[in-house]
Amino acid sequence: MQAEIIAVGTEILLGQITDTNSPLVARLLATLDIDTYYQTVVGDNHERLLSALDIASKRADLIITIGGLGPTPDDLTKQTVAEFVNQALVEDQPALAKIVDYHEQTHRPMSDNNRLQALYMADGEPLLNENGFAVGCFYANPTGPDVLLLPGPPWELEPMLVKHALPVLAEHYQQSGMLLSRVLRFYGIGESRLVTQLARLIDDQTNPTVAPYAKAHEVTLRITAHAQTKDAAIKLIDEMEVEIMAEVGEYFYGYGDDFSLEACVGELLINSNLHITAAESMTAGLFQSTLGKVPGISQVFDGGLVTYSPATKIALLDIKPALIEQHGVVSEATAIAMAQGAKKQLAADIAVSFTGVASGELEGQPAGTVWIGLAFQDEPVEAVVYHFGTERQKNRERAVMAGLDMVRRKILGLPLVAHK
Amino acid sequence: MQAEIIAVGTEILLGQITDTNSPLVARLLATLDIDTYYQTVVGDNHERLLSALDIASKRADLIITIGGLGPTPDDLTKQTVAEFVNQALVEDQPALAKIVDYHEQTHRPMSDNNRLQALYMADGEPLLNENGFAVGCFYANPTGPDVLLLPGPPWELEPMLVKHALPVLAEHYQQSGMLLSRVLRFYGIGESRLVTQLARLIDDQTNPTVAPYAKAHEVTLRITAHAQTKDAAIKLIDEMEVEIMAEVGEYFYGYGDDFSLEACVGELLINSNLHITAAESMTAGLFQSTLGKVPGISQVFDGGLVTYSPATKIALLDIKPALIEQHGVVSEATAIAMAQGAKKQLAADIAVSFTGVASGELEGQPAGTVWIGLAFQDEPVEAVVYHFGTERQKNRERAVMAGLDMVRRKILGLPLVAHK
Repeated sequence: MQAEIIAVGTEILLGQITDTNSPLVARLLATLDIDTYYQTVVGDNHERLLSALDIASKRADLIITIGGLGPTPDDLTKQTVAEFVNQALVEDQPALAKIVDYHEQTHRPMSDNNRLQALYMADGEPLLNENGFAVGCFYANPTGPDVLLLPGPPWELEPMLVKHALPVLAEHYQQSGMLLSRVLRFYGIGESRLVTQLARLIDDQTNPTVAPYAKAHEVTLRITAHAQTKDAAIKLIDEMEVEIMAEVGEYFYGYGDDFSLEACVGELLINSNLHITAAESMTAGLFQSTLGKVPGISQVFDGGLVTYSPATKIALLDIKPALIEQHGVVSEATAIAMAQGAKKQLAADIAVSFTGVASGELEGQPAGTVWIGLAFQDEPVEAVVYHFGTERQKNRERAVMAGLDMVRRKILGLPLVAHK
Repeated sequence: MQAEIIAVGTEILLGQITDTNSPLVARLLATLDIDTYYQTVVGDNHERLLSALDIASKRADLIITIGGLGPTPDDLTKQTVAEFVNQALVEDQPALAKIVDYHEQTHRPMSDNNRLQALYMADGEPLLNENGFAVGCFYANPTGPDVLLLPGPPWELEPMLVKHALPVLAEHYQQSGMLLSRVLRFYGIGESRLVTQLARLIDDQTNPTVAPYAKAHEVTLRITAHAQTKDAAIKLIDEMEVEIMAEVGEYFYGYGDDFSLEACVGELLINSNLHITAAESMTAGLFQSTLGKVPGISQVFDGGLVTYSPATKIALLDIKPALIEQHGVVSEATAIAMAQGAKKQLAADIAVSFTGVASGELEGQPAGTVWIGLAFQDEPVEAVVYHFGTERQKNRERAVMAGLDMVRRKILGLPLVAHK
């Protein structure tokens, strides 16, 4: 079962608005096991829309148009589709009554254009628009692809699709079964290495499928299964997850599209009631402000220090000048002293320190060299050195992610750093 | 001149990510007078991409593909396009060197897949990827439509397109004359208000054109002029800039795609040798870490304090508990005391303080309420209250931008806050 989505609108073509409808339609179609192989954007132009419909009709069983159902002269989707499938347009009486009522109540003159919004294809089924006037339509075409007309404004499209169009499609196509997906999140392994290690599972994917996506400084895998029941889909996903974890489980940190490493760490800290602080040099507050994204973090985060210059490390963290002179600012000894100092100053359970070279060169060390220190309760303070790249802001972001992961691993009793 | 954009990615087809690249590409093409009549999304599938290329080649002079240049097996855009236009793929040596360097520096094993990212079409022109490894390519095709290959991650696509691809396209398609553009940056005015105030200039645009873009918490205007000589183009832009400034000049802070409010403030601080510090509560270090993005900021930034809890405000900033008890944490008095305390603790010329409600409610004040304090040399400390929205992270970001703008205005001798 193949569908093609055609978003109609010159303002999309010009890039004046971003089409968020097509992704929504695609996601919801997937729940009915309807795939899309192509999505097209075309302007409010009769000839080019006809051409797009013609191309789509050769490769899809269902054509879904979005937009162009309104009352203005450039709204011509309904008329063009009706012409393409050779259908007359008739008035939907409830939709028309709503339009007439509105104009009466607001004392606005009603033009003939307004009536157009109540039209639907004679042999089709009108679809209620709860948040607007333009009625939608599904037409089961006996001689070609079926067509579904949806309105362009997202607040009109979404309820029409979910409440009215999808039930009609489900009934018409008598879909059985369901689609379920789960997102696994990994930190500390690049996309290409993850894909290489999971090549067998990704390449041989049929059901469930496994799709990797590189996010900023992390990678996610989406496992998607199709089955007759939810339990059966969950079982398929569970089995695949076990296989994935056997390969790359040491980099896994959590589930879900909206999860993040800081949310994971925040959750662990709050659940264990461990108070955290930081002394930040090259990250200049980015670690703490990242933690600050997590709602409720104030339960376990009281504050910390940004010690950018050597003088502030000495003044605010009570570090001996001789230690910095002897070992350098970017060193294991300084990272350890910073973490110790911060933990003491803030009376925290955990303190993380960052000292490194964001860009350029410092003390003969290249950009990307970062020492991260970790003081945890009464344990000896540890520090790990990282070698990132040459870009200032990326180095700072990667240092923060590495620091978060060290905290996560420490709380969970894992080695401080994943096997590289 | 007709272009067609083909966004390649199964994750777009599935609706898992929204394609924000195509609108950007369309907007930027428009500055070169290149229209798009169709945009297509196709999955990471060899046959279907070939079919999409075939259809596009019949209706466009330039085909632009987005995505599928990465190192994984499902990245097949480059190979497929090369096959379609009958081009061999060769290695871009600088791009390859960058990939090799990265793997050496980070001690990561490099797989053959990684090398693929350095390939471009033999008779084409490789396009530098400043934020990633996959090189882009423009190929002027003598026997069919030209092709332009761009990477999928937006942070890679945008700089490649603006800095490298558009100049190549402009040169290739503009036989005579030249295209020049200038970006003006504004803070403190929303896009819709800016567009309303400049309606006359934006709507009547022919040459130069004026295109507004809403960025995170700021707005930019790109003035683009076409002329026979560079001087003539500059003159057109200068004249338009004067008209724009007469309307919205008080919100203008600087020029250029890569400029930012923090870079502007960093420049001002360094040039005036004014040392800055901060005491951050609801922003939790985001102000300082934003300043930390500016190369060379260490000349004027020694460090600062994150005082998230009331206790740390008292302990680290020497604020009297009675003051917080009497006025509340989110108050003018506390903001002023925090700025005073930080300025003294760090012996700085300028101190900024942030205390507010990121989300939920605090002391009966709604989310979005933020007091920002500013201590400047020996002047009386000032504080300004802002009322942002309900989203936690957005409120924190907006507070940082507002604080940066206050510092900028103070140094420049402007009113602390623009006319609202």
